[in-house]
Amino acid sequence: MGLIVQKFGGSSVANAERVFNVADIVTKTYDKGNDVVVVVSAQGDTTDDLIEKAREINPDASRREMDMLMTAGEQISASLLAMAIEKLGYPVISLLGWQAGFLTSSAYGIARIKQVTPDRIQKELDKKNIVVVTGFQGINRYNDMTTLGRGGSDTSAVAIAAAMHADLCQIYTDVEGVYTADPRKVKGARKLDVISYDEMLELATLGAQVLNNRSVEMAKKYNIELEVLSSLTRAPGTIVKEATKMEKMLISGVAKDDDVARISIIGVPDRPGFAFKLFSKLSAKRVNVDIILQSVGRNGTKDISFTIAKSNLKPTLELVNAFLETSGASGVVYDENISKVSVVGAGMESHPGVAASMFEALFEADINIQMISTSEIKISVLIERSDADKAVAAIHDKFFSPVGD
Amino acid sequence: MGLIVQKFGGSSVANAERVFNVADIVTKTYDKGNDVVVVVSAQGDTTDDLIEKAREINPDASRREMDMLMTAGEQISASLLAMAIEKLGYPVISLLGWQAGFLTSSAYGIARIKQVTPDRIQKELDKKNIVVVTGFQGINRYNDMTTLGRGGSDTSAVAIAAAMHADLCQIYTDVEGVYTADPRKVKGARKLDVISYDEMLELATLGAQVLNNRSVEMAKKYNIELEVLSSLTRAPGTIVKEATKMEKMLISGVAKDDDVARISIIGVPDRPGFAFKLFSKLSAKRVNVDIILQSVGRNGTKDISFTIAKSNLKPTLELVNAFLETSGASGVVYDENISKVSVVGAGMESHPGVAASMFEALFEADINIQMISTSEIKISVLIERSDADKAVAAIHDKFFSPVGD
Repeated sequence: MGLIVQKFGGSSVANAERVFNVADIVTKTYDKGNDVVVVVSAQGDTTDDLIEKAREINPDASRREMDMLMTAGEQISASLLAMAIEKLGYPVISLLGWQAGFLTSSAYGIARIKQVTPDRIQKELDKKNIVVVTGFQGINRYNDMTTLGRGGSDTSAVAIAAAMHADLCQIYTDVEGVYTADPRKVKGARKLDVISYDEMLELATLGAQVLNNRSVEMAKKYNIELEVLSSLTRAPGTIVKEATKMEKMLISGVAKDDDVARISIIGVPDRPGFAFKLFSKLSAKRVNVDIILQSVGRNGTKDISFTIAKSNLKPTLELVNAFLETSGASGVVYDENISKVSVVGAGMESHPGVAASMFEALFEADINIQMISTSEIKISVLIERSDADKAVAAIHDKFFSPVGD
Repeated sequence: MGLIVQKFGGSSVANAERVFNVADIVTKTYDKGNDVVVVVSAQGDTTDDLIEKAREINPDASRREMDMLMTAGEQISASLLAMAIEKLGYPVISLLGWQAGFLTSSAYGIARIKQVTPDRIQKELDKKNIVVVTGFQGINRYNDMTTLGRGGSDTSAVAIAAAMHADLCQIYTDVEGVYTADPRKVKGARKLDVISYDEMLELATLGAQVLNNRSVEMAKKYNIELEVLSSLTRAPGTIVKEATKMEKMLISGVAKDDDVARISIIGVPDRPGFAFKLFSKLSAKRVNVDIILQSVGRNGTKDISFTIAKSNLKPTLELVNAFLETSGASGVVYDENISKVSVVGAGMESHPGVAASMFEALFEADINIQMISTSEIKISVLIERSDADKAVAAIHDKFFSPVGD
């Protein structure tokens, strides 16, 4: 018994049947004597409908009005879920982001949570109500509606859990937890029982798509135990929490990210300042650069390569080309048919040889490595897109061999 | 130049094309140097969709959650209209009921406006913004979303006009104004240039369906000049304002109401208290009784007849039958195939003979009158439903003869 925050995404409340499935999970948790706060996203089709309506009228609508429009989505799903819980005979109340005390920054569409003041939630819990809160939204200091951007509902849930010192924050999705690799692609991929915040962060940024990064960062900061699990199968999921020494796994997972493009600038004059100027220009345009590699200088010139999200390729190339005209570099090449494949594991800090095993697996599969990047708990390689699935399988087999488990 | 409040109903913003039509009306008003506050209802199909979603999940959902759901409707239409106005290149901001300062009673689904504090609206007008406000909604003292019930958006518009001392409140609908009779049914029905609040009130309660009654009452109380006009033709409409002596028309219109059922209680013992007990029971069940007629007592008994909305017929009959068992009356009969036809005109106070002309028209058309009810500016008769359209045409011809205009 305690306080449990449960978050359900858009697909978990997609239709009446799914809404009742969620109501059933929620009320069963309540029946065990828990206080329950439920955070919901908008129904998937609602979000699509609203975006289509806006696009038809003004594709360049202000973000302020887009947020006004989109926040109606969670309002609809939250009230519908409350109605389903009423139907099951339980006391329940739905609250909008602002009613639940979500104060955010003013950056419409990508607002950050500044403060959660859960007085109203607590008051409703004290009355023994199940409390349904709209995820993804809040208000800014002008009292205007804001949205938190992609994956914001996960963050909403963790923020409530942090503000109310919840005992557990469950993130219900359409997968059963965090896997050692994508289970749809890699035979033998296994669900992890436990993973550390840091490993989860590396996996999230690497395209594992299970949990939003900001929510994991916040959970780590406030030490909120997360559980990732499926609203459909309801099997125990993966717990995300602070790693203890004992729990550190050598490798917790293998991830692939296809949303990668590589740009290489050739023949950069070997003088200080080039990289600084280039990357501040990219940063000013909000282009997020991932891996950066610089070759050792030769004949007074060097090469600089970096990766970005594919959607940024065109504006970045324009920016780089304009920059090149004044910089003295000899040219630029790019490749968007690449993938990034990574292994993540808190245990590799103290175990050399992980990189070697990974490269061995790729060599045995006859896969060429274009770039390598490493952190304390992660090793990433850039390879050709067409090799990516084969690479993930080969690496996964190497570390999680069906026999040597 | 001044402050103009413009209200647009659900059909005026039904789709993107209509939304741009409204944006055009609004910005043309703004271009003339006016401050403009726009009040919008939900798009018709949005309302239908939301009701359907709720019905599918819980037809007996609490009114509190229904209001949470339904208020999303105006949020969507208000932001879409703001986006259209942005597209036309004008400064605009949309505000929800609570942002616009609408404090209401707590009666979910049928809340009444307690106070409008238009500070935020004024602030946005001072910034030269066009302000779009969601009609039909507000918050109560618990900070929960409420709706004002049927026709509530008209009331929202008049309430803003009253709170801000607007120069004019325009109610855009799908008709061109207030007519002497239903123009779809009565040849020769004429649009009125001006009508008094009292006449409009009588017409509204009589089924003219042009303006919501509460909004006219509020306009009268605060002396707000209303204009009823069409968002599609944009022709000058009908002005609703305080009547001066000169303007008092003998007859301003003929109206028909089909939503009527009559109940007669036969053989009521001629003792005091029966009517009091009966109608307090009906009132306790919130059954609105319209016309009441009591026959002169004969042989120690009398008959009592009254009319109600058809939707109330079944519960009212149950209540009346239960009451009869203990009351000594001999029986109850009812008729739901009736209509109420009325003439309204502030001038009839000082012109006797209006009733006689009306009854003469009905006699000439061979229509039998079942009940008669009169007020200072209105005469209503109850007749068979099948005679109703013929009755309206006959009465209209009598008072608005094509020749003697």
